[in-house]
Amino acid sequence: MSNKIRLGILGGGGDSLIGILHRVASSMYDKYQIVGGVFNPNWEDNIGFAKQIGLPTNRIYKDFDTLIEEELKLPESERIQVVSILTPNFLHFPMANKLLENGFHVICEKPMTTTYEEAKILNQTLKKAQTVFAVTYTYTGYPMVRQMREMILNGELGTIQKVDAQYYQGWINPIIHDKEKRSSTWRLNPEKSGISCCIGDIGTHAFDMLEFVSGVKIESVLADLNYLYSDNKMDIDGTVLLRCSKNVKGVICSSQIATGEENSFIVKVYGDKAGLKWEQENPNYLYLMEDGKPLRVLKPGHSYNSELSLDGTKLPPGHPEGIFDSMGNIYKGVAKAINKEPYNHGEFPTIIDGVRGMNFIEKAVESHQKGNVWVDIENVD
Amino acid sequence: MSNKIRLGILGGGGDSLIGILHRVASSMYDKYQIVGGVFNPNWEDNIGFAKQIGLPTNRIYKDFDTLIEEELKLPESERIQVVSILTPNFLHFPMANKLLENGFHVICEKPMTTTYEEAKILNQTLKKAQTVFAVTYTYTGYPMVRQMREMILNGELGTIQKVDAQYYQGWINPIIHDKEKRSSTWRLNPEKSGISCCIGDIGTHAFDMLEFVSGVKIESVLADLNYLYSDNKMDIDGTVLLRCSKNVKGVICSSQIATGEENSFIVKVYGDKAGLKWEQENPNYLYLMEDGKPLRVLKPGHSYNSELSLDGTKLPPGHPEGIFDSMGNIYKGVAKAINKEPYNHGEFPTIIDGVRGMNFIEKAVESHQKGNVWVDIENVD
Amino acid sequence: MSNKIRLGILGGGGDSLIGILHRVASSMYDKYQIVGGVFNPNWEDNIGFAKQIGLPTNRIYKDFDTLIEEELKLPESERIQVVSILTPNFLHFPMANKLLENGFHVICEKPMTTTYEEAKILNQTLKKAQTVFAVTYTYTGYPMVRQMREMILNGELGTIQKVDAQYYQGWINPIIHDKEKRSSTWRLNPEKSGISCCIGDIGTHAFDMLEFVSGVKIESVLADLNYLYSDNKMDIDGTVLLRCSKNVKGVICSSQIATGEENSFIVKVYGDKAGLKWEQENPNYLYLMEDGKPLRVLKPGHSYNSELSLDGTKLPPGHPEGIFDSMGNIYKGVAKAINKEPYNHGEFPTIIDGVRGMNFIEKAVESHQKGNVWVDIENVD
Amino acid sequence: MSNKIRLGILGGGGDSLIGILHRVASSMYDKYQIVGGVFNPNWEDNIGFAKQIGLPTNRIYKDFDTLIEEELKLPESERIQVVSILTPNFLHFPMANKLLENGFHVICEKPMTTTYEEAKILNQTLKKAQTVFAVTYTYTGYPMVRQMREMILNGELGTIQKVDAQYYQGWINPIIHDKEKRSSTWRLNPEKSGISCCIGDIGTHAFDMLEFVSGVKIESVLADLNYLYSDNKMDIDGTVLLRCSKNVKGVICSSQIATGEENSFIVKVYGDKAGLKWEQENPNYLYLMEDGKPLRVLKPGHSYNSELSLDGTKLPPGHPEGIFDSMGNIYKGVAKAINKEPYNHGEFPTIIDGVRGMNFIEKAVESHQKGNVWVDIENVD
Repeated sequence: MSNKIRLGILGGGGDSLIGILHRVASSMYDKYQIVGGVFNPNWEDNIGFAKQIGLPTNRIYKDFDTLIEEELKLPESERIQVVSILTPNFLHFPMANKLLENGFHVICEKPMTTTYEEAKILNQTLKKAQTVFAVTYTYTGYPMVRQMREMILNGELGTIQKVDAQYYQGWINPIIHDKEKRSSTWRLNPEKSGISCCIGDIGTHAFDMLEFVSGVKIESVLADLNYLYSDNKMDIDGTVLLRCSKNVKGVICSSQIATGEENSFIVKVYGDKAGLKWEQENPNYLYLMEDGKPLRVLKPGHSYNSELSLDGTKLPPGHPEGIFDSMGNIYKGVAKAINKEPYNHGEFPTIIDGVRGMNFIEKAVESHQKGNVWVDIENVD
Repeated sequence: MSNKIRLGILGGGGDSLIGILHRVASSMYDKYQIVGGVFNPNWEDNIGFAKQIGLPTNRIYKDFDTLIEEELKLPESERIQVVSILTPNFLHFPMANKLLENGFHVICEKPMTTTYEEAKILNQTLKKAQTVFAVTYTYTGYPMVRQMREMILNGELGTIQKVDAQYYQGWINPIIHDKEKRSSTWRLNPEKSGISCCIGDIGTHAFDMLEFVSGVKIESVLADLNYLYSDNKMDIDGTVLLRCSKNVKGVICSSQIATGEENSFIVKVYGDKAGLKWEQENPNYLYLMEDGKPLRVLKPGHSYNSELSLDGTKLPPGHPEGIFDSMGNIYKGVAKAINKEPYNHGEFPTIIDGVRGMNFIEKAVESHQKGNVWVDIENVD
Repeated sequence: MSNKIRLGILGGGGDSLIGILHRVASSMYDKYQIVGGVFNPNWEDNIGFAKQIGLPTNRIYKDFDTLIEEELKLPESERIQVVSILTPNFLHFPMANKLLENGFHVICEKPMTTTYEEAKILNQTLKKAQTVFAVTYTYTGYPMVRQMREMILNGELGTIQKVDAQYYQGWINPIIHDKEKRSSTWRLNPEKSGISCCIGDIGTHAFDMLEFVSGVKIESVLADLNYLYSDNKMDIDGTVLLRCSKNVKGVICSSQIATGEENSFIVKVYGDKAGLKWEQENPNYLYLMEDGKPLRVLKPGHSYNSELSLDGTKLPPGHPEGIFDSMGNIYKGVAKAINKEPYNHGEFPTIIDGVRGMNFIEKAVESHQKGNVWVDIENVD
Repeated sequence: MSNKIRLGILGGGGDSLIGILHRVASSMYDKYQIVGGVFNPNWEDNIGFAKQIGLPTNRIYKDFDTLIEEELKLPESERIQVVSILTPNFLHFPMANKLLENGFHVICEKPMTTTYEEAKILNQTLKKAQTVFAVTYTYTGYPMVRQMREMILNGELGTIQKVDAQYYQGWINPIIHDKEKRSSTWRLNPEKSGISCCIGDIGTHAFDMLEFVSGVKIESVLADLNYLYSDNKMDIDGTVLLRCSKNVKGVICSSQIATGEENSFIVKVYGDKAGLKWEQENPNYLYLMEDGKPLRVLKPGHSYNSELSLDGTKLPPGHPEGIFDSMGNIYKGVAKAINKEPYNHGEFPTIIDGVRGMNFIEKAVESHQKGNVWVDIENVD
């Protein structure tokens, strides 16, 4: 009998990209076995997909509520232990909340919820449940992001004095410039996608990453968002000025109209001793800049890296790993938590990251709507 | 009942890097299920490792011969279909040969055998067996390597006029410069490692890659190898001049004493219309150079790429995939062949690649020993 | 008798970096001959320096007023035609103003003046003088910056929708964190350096460059500046939100506390068809990004470049030129204007660039001081 | 009266690229004044060009012999001190030889002569003349090449164990593939261009550079050249295996059919402690690779650089200088030698570099013609 963690999956069927990402990630360290789930609301697609990925179909359920009901009937030693939620955004909250209430561990795609209010409720539920909860800000799993965090926490940059993140994409052009498309796509429909497109989808990655690597807390934001067309209801570009703990200032530049950019997420943190830069599209390089010294380029797998970083590298230097490996590292960390093994706080993003991210989205939009004024991020614990 | 391909593994237990590479690769497209194998000659380690990676232990065998014997007793619908050979090099040939003789498909790590003679025998065995055989020149699975191949085969470079590969590493320094270590390590012991270290381990990758992407055949070689110390028995650096089909000349530069280099494998092919360059350490960039035109940088996942390339990319542009994904693509191709689905000849390296690679190693050493003279590569089919 | 333009120099003696930059730049296209000037207020240093750089000393003057007085006595065919002002900032305005009033052409280092008020007066003086005036925003002379401008003006990006400039340096760290130094350096003394350090020195380059390459006008700014210490009187970091003509939004990120950054000036402009990126530290690459197409990297000297770009490249592709060559191109453009030859408006920055730059500095500081509110840039012509 | 060195120029008139390169280089440090020369064999073009570059015409001579004759009549304090030879290759030797015989210093473009025999004669003439002689292997003047040399000479790489240079261009394609053009261009005519095209033009740069930076002497070569067409008389591509002093092996890869390459000259030297890499197209980066340490990127102008390197940088870090600046540094070194000031041996390439370079060309061709055999480079002093 396998001692792997029994994993259930909600959503992610068919050609879903997020589906294959989570399946591969879960398999990378031989820690999980997918035992069941609901891949699709359509029963034939659901069962068909389960067969396609080689799963036995006895624990493929017709819907989420049935999954909970049936799994609870199983002895604990057979029951799904953790559920990955890969469904449309508006389902994240009700599913996660019910799973936690019934004692399951949860791995939840971002955005964790559709409102800050929901996020706070989920946080309360988790406090009662005392299970493991992770929100998949995938990029925090890269070895060199982890290394960046550890170096900063260890004081290698000195006192932090500036944080800066850019997240530029260009994919929305064909939609935003077409009157018909921009009014019909679900991505630009607030009822389906929440109150923000650009900040909600990628700005929130930048927000989480800056806090993750720098250890400073973003306390206030002043945002100028861009909608481009007066009939467009959601931001597709935005710059956010930041005021942080420890007297640090910073900026987040995000855009979905940065034409030709693919997924250009760049993070820079400067202390009074040195600076660090990381770029998602070349994730295996971490640039250490010190005044008057040669630029140093750190790479994964070297013994000069921290334990947290090395724990996320499978092969020796020179063998590039990528985003699947990054997500795999998050799954690995969650596995440790579920198995009650010791783990580093940086191994996976927690519900607090999710709650703060939701608050950031709402506050950025509020700042913009009030005429680009400073608005505070709330504290949660 | 799962419709996944039943995979057996030989070797790759414990902390084996090649072990995790193959396990992850096999899982990437939901095509394989590991059902058994022999991970370690020590029974306790063998069983212990199986448990550690969450495998049922009923088909973990005490040794290779037992695996064959027991699996053949199972009905074909339950029997292991394909075996991945990850054992020490000298075991590749006898294992592969027996597996083929008994009707199994085989995925074999490189070097395929320890001598060219063995390689030719294996080729004959395969001709009788008519099963699927792949040798894992891992780098050929990268999407941009596949794209390079397709563009060249489609004539986008015009007539090929120059091929060039560099494969530089620096890891052997601490061994080679230590008299004690260089005489005791198995890597520099011809009885354990075959007749060549540098050419055998990495030069052969360069040889296979040049033929894979360019479509030209390397016909003669003139090699100057370097042993650095007179008491060292194996080359740790070597440059090989090439004469190829279609009147093409070229060069392979390989080294394990290129201090500080990690895994710098660079491939360049020039035609009379354009040139292409690819670098393993940044595998998601393919550089297209045309006289008088802007340099173009092709990246994975774009619709401008060939089918063969796109088939090896799971996520959209800007989401870097790496070497696990590259190996995953080779497994995907093998799965198609096993399942008798249509596939492109470039999806996995065949026994011919393995046979030619073994011949290259022997001929390069022969050229050097005869005083740097031209020696012909033999034709096989 | 030489037909070179007779050039006078004010300042730039001794080890002055700006001095050697202008001297070399003036010589690059065989268009100028330095005939006199005032290199230093100290007479011995002044004469000594003239000898050191191989100049006859008969037209080295004891001070600026004497230069004007004596040169005006010479026949026009011998008189200095154009004067380069390389003195401390507060002298730029009085010198430039008097030179223009006396019919000289002027090449003025930036910042053109110390206040916007002075800049407007200078503009009026120039209108009467009708001579040639250039302000040396050096970076606009790079061939690939010129190419960027031409491509955008030709519509190759489509409708501009986003502008973004980053100018990060880290040199001020050793000063700003030392209480004694930050109170005593002239750079952080408003009486000696004007009202802004970071915005005034480098933010203004970003402002000018964005307008230069994109053709849009920046109309309003909202700035958040950073002084780091309460006893520090001048900004050493600042982010400025931009609202521009044609409904374009943008951002300027500038810093002198971006530790380890040298002179990282990066300019990005995105249109609805494509985007362009240029980086000062690698000035010979221009990145053209189009959705769904390979990234293209344009380089100097190729026939695909515009006339304006090619006019600024002396050698064939692959022979890197640098910042001296960039400044040389500005001098070349000024020479054309002085010689009344046809020239492209992009060949050198004009007084309007200088005036707008001064206004930007004052408005950015005003925005910050008023609590990060929108402030309009004035129109000048 | 100017104390600049009086420089004469032979050739380089009209649109000559080498002409502008030398003129600008000579002006960069205020050390030279061009006083006369012969720019063109056609008198009107000669005088016209002198006027165009603003020179007085009284010392523009109708031919080389007249220049010598007339200049010798002038008092030594007015006479041309040093002559730059920028004429077609076959004139280098007779001009340089006569100039040396008459006591002039000489700056000679490469190839220094057309045969090794001439080179040796010139060396003898110089020994008698005892004047200053420099051959302009331009690339050795780059600050980071100088830094590479100094670091290696200082032992920072440990014992050298491998040298490698690549010099790839693609410009000859339109000529070589056109039967008419390849038979008519002077570049592929041995009577006009000497015995080698690719090795003679660029391979020789690689040869000189490897010796310049590494301090090892190349002792034997084995070359495989490529002519592509049987009716083509000169190599347009060639790989040269190297055996060097101190038991070092290496390789030079050179090509003019590397389609799309511009001027890709890359130099790598590996010692047992570390490796260094430099690329001409990005000349301001020097990569220091050490096993198990972060890659370090050294850049010009930092105090961590050697005196020799810093002497060749005019502006602070982050202000890129280029090939004009590199040549300017060679002129600066020659000025020191002429002025009998102390200078570093690395400041300019000497006649020994020129002699060895000529020998390399002849030996590479000899090796190829004899069937790719080892041929020794001769020793000269």
